[in-house]
Amino acid sequence: MTEYRNKQWIYTKRPEKLVDNTHYTLNVATLQTTDLKPGQALLKSTYFSIDPYMRIQQSGKDTWEEPHPLNIVQGGAVVGIIVAINDSDSSLQKGDWVLSYTGWQEYAITETNTLRKLDPKEVPVTTALGILGMPARIAYFGLIEVGKPQKGETVVVSGASGAVGQVVVQIAKIKGCKVVGIAGSDEKTSYLKETLGVDEIINYKKHPSAIEIQNELSKLCPEGIDIYYDNVGGYITDAIFELINLNARIIICGQISQYSGGLDNPEMGPRFLHKMLYKRATIQGVLARDYNHRMNEMLTEMTPWVQNKSLKYKETIIDGFDNLPKALNMLFHGKNMGKLIVKV
Amino acid sequence: MTEYRNKQWIYTKRPEKLVDNTHYTLNVATLQTTDLKPGQALLKSTYFSIDPYMRIQQSGKDTWEEPHPLNIVQGGAVVGIIVAINDSDSSLQKGDWVLSYTGWQEYAITETNTLRKLDPKEVPVTTALGILGMPARIAYFGLIEVGKPQKGETVVVSGASGAVGQVVVQIAKIKGCKVVGIAGSDEKTSYLKETLGVDEIINYKKHPSAIEIQNELSKLCPEGIDIYYDNVGGYITDAIFELINLNARIIICGQISQYSGGLDNPEMGPRFLHKMLYKRATIQGVLARDYNHRMNEMLTEMTPWVQNKSLKYKETIIDGFDNLPKALNMLFHGKNMGKLIVKV
Repeated sequence: MTEYRNKQWIYTKRPEKLVDNTHYTLNVATLQTTDLKPGQALLKSTYFSIDPYMRIQQSGKDTWEEPHPLNIVQGGAVVGIIVAINDSDSSLQKGDWVLSYTGWQEYAITETNTLRKLDPKEVPVTTALGILGMPARIAYFGLIEVGKPQKGETVVVSGASGAVGQVVVQIAKIKGCKVVGIAGSDEKTSYLKETLGVDEIINYKKHPSAIEIQNELSKLCPEGIDIYYDNVGGYITDAIFELINLNARIIICGQISQYSGGLDNPEMGPRFLHKMLYKRATIQGVLARDYNHRMNEMLTEMTPWVQNKSLKYKETIIDGFDNLPKALNMLFHGKNMGKLIVKV
Repeated sequence: MTEYRNKQWIYTKRPEKLVDNTHYTLNVATLQTTDLKPGQALLKSTYFSIDPYMRIQQSGKDTWEEPHPLNIVQGGAVVGIIVAINDSDSSLQKGDWVLSYTGWQEYAITETNTLRKLDPKEVPVTTALGILGMPARIAYFGLIEVGKPQKGETVVVSGASGAVGQVVVQIAKIKGCKVVGIAGSDEKTSYLKETLGVDEIINYKKHPSAIEIQNELSKLCPEGIDIYYDNVGGYITDAIFELINLNARIIICGQISQYSGGLDNPEMGPRFLHKMLYKRATIQGVLARDYNHRMNEMLTEMTPWVQNKSLKYKETIIDGFDNLPKALNMLFHGKNMGKLIVKV
């Protein structure tokens, strides 16, 4: 029998605005290999996924499911290693890298049939959280199936250097679109333009109002906007409605500007629905889970792109289990480039 | 040669808020039968269509087309009678009822190939402006093709007793949906419930805020809202986002609450796009002209419904050419039941 000292971040208090350490309690539990029931594995967590949706679920409101319960381990995706397994029928074995959904704890016991095996010889295991994970899935299916990008169309992407945005802009380029990326620093916009090949960029911090962003966009999109892939919402999104083309498609993947308070007490913004009418445009909300069953389809197409580097990506990796709440808070200050991960 | 004294309402000034007589000038011109070129007809206008879109085009902004030019006859659909014709190839003849788009004038010369012949023995000619005209077309195609109503679904309709709304609620009933109609007087809601067979009604004047309407809707729609057909916008529309179901369809046909000022200086409202995300819902703007080429399809299905009275309708008919601007103003005070028409 081996016993593991298991640090856990327990979610103990609903945030009203930004989330930080005060909404969590650090707990120390123990786990033993003898706790393993048949069909289970004991994992050591290595990489924790930090995602905007976590903050949505911390709102007291029902969203796509019940709010995250209080006084349990913060949920979330994890890449870890199997340190013990009690399942002779499984193809998994001790030492395997896996993707799990065991949340913010150093160790976890979980059913083997919930795990996805990762091959570190194929692609780095962290890609399962980002460029070949949930954010990429909604980038891929959201853009292709809802956005239906056509060659020569203009695609504007907000949060363009984030985990989802960096994938959207590259797929849009692969599809032959003109791509305008909006992000919040010169470092981010340089990355978009110089590394990812985005055609035009806007650092919204230099244009801190809807009308200023609209003015920039109208210069950069002389043929209007056909697709707007939105990760951000708020005044950045207000800027696009005067510029959309006939039958424009607006994909709502995220509204990160609204999560820290705006879900409970909505921010006010200018009404724009009449503009949808003029342009017979469509807004559609998309969620990664709706494409879960099509993960292999995406991996089949995108894994070679990652391997041959035609699809590039950034990860921001923060060290230390104790920094998990701080890392989640960072998301809402736009401090990450690409996928935000905490490593232990 | 016959000469006609032709009164015309000339659109002379862009309204900033409500439109009224001060934005028009009454002009008297003359028309002569000798003015008719080959392929033209001279019409006597009888029924003038009063439509919310007229106010949209009076905004200085581009919408689906350029703003209505100043200093010309106010455009609009008209039902009239041919009083002279110079076209031996046409099946039309003197005395025929026709639908034209010749605007606010007592007489007009127009190309015969722009006219649709109406048969007063088949259905009343005014139906070409309402229940079998443009408003019905967008009601029909907007609900069926964008809303995709399924039996047992809950459909909420704003502006439910208007020219479009009265058609939407009845088609939704024909499709087996539960229908909730929102309108602005007891007379309107009684008509909806007692004559049109709408299941549930809300007189929004009795619940003058988004939260009050939301509370009513949550009582009346215990299974949530699958389709929202919006003719109104503003706070009535704000009320629905907490109640939409997974994959809800929101059809933006009109935003009449926003037309008298809100197009130029947008009203502020609570941001709701994050709710589209949770429910993977769709908003789509629809415009009648997109279904112009499918008019016969609609007439084939709906003319028998009108003839056998399975599709009921109201018209509000105002007498007198001089009342045209006043009638347009009435629309924005919700003073019409069903289709608003001016008769000379």
